[in-house]
Amino acid sequence: MKHSETEARNLAIATAMYRDMLMKFDSRHVDRFIAEDYIQHSTAASGGREGLRAFLDDRRAGFPDVDIRIKARYADGDVTIFHIHTVRHPGDPGMNIVDIFRHGADGKVCEHWEVVQEIPERLPHDNGIF
Amino acid sequence: MKHSETEARNLAIATAMYRDMLMKFDSRHVDRFIAEDYIQHSTAASGGREGLRAFLDDRRAGFPDVDIRIKARYADGDVTIFHIHTVRHPGDPGMNIVDIFRHGADGKVCEHWEVVQEIPERLPHDNGIF
Repeated sequence: MKHSETEARNLAIATAMYRDMLMKFDSRHVDRFIAEDYIQHSTAASGGREGLRAFLDDRRAGFPDVDIRIKARYADGDVTIFHIHTVRHPGDPGMNIVDIFRHGADGKVCEHWEVVQEIPERLPHDNGIF
Repeated sequence: MKHSETEARNLAIATAMYRDMLMKFDSRHVDRFIAEDYIQHSTAASGGREGLRAFLDDRRAGFPDVDIRIKARYADGDVTIFHIHTVRHPGDPGMNIVDIFRHGADGKVCEHWEVVQEIPERLPHDNGIF
């Protein structure tokens, strides 16, 4: 895909955010990637940077063997969109997730929307969910 | 957002597909919007055009008062991404959905990924889910 400089920068920042923070539930990186006035829309976390830190700490304790993989990533203007497969523990079919991030002028994430679905054992076709 | 001609065309086609087909569960428009070799990844429908037709006919019978709204839409190359609120009947908090479509050279949809989440009665913040 052909991305603008801003789109390419935002994709690089969000990808680093997955690698360093989200894939390891490492709350130490919140201030590096998340804007001060962060608006959370996810059903999983309470508001702002503090809510995200609490979410990451909770999940880190609960899912030490989590395996989070980026299946696809997209950018449109100041928004990046990631299609994610989160396997919480070995044998888990996992969760089918889309994260949508709005980035500020400095690239930090200002706003986050999320859709989360448990992956069923069986699908009504042979194409996989990703 | 600044879109290429292809991105703008694909967004227009997908938006018309919601208006004429998906928002009304109207299976008569499948061949107009969906490619012959359509690859379905959704958990809700079986494969191909036939699976989509069966899905639409089933939902049309089950949810005659459905209200489907586009909350946001994005494009990246040959892919369009729609954030959708589907209210199945009056009083339903509804479903939080992201649809991802890959469009062919002629604009028809060749492939579809979807994440579907029931919207809970309460969120852990006051920002809404959209």
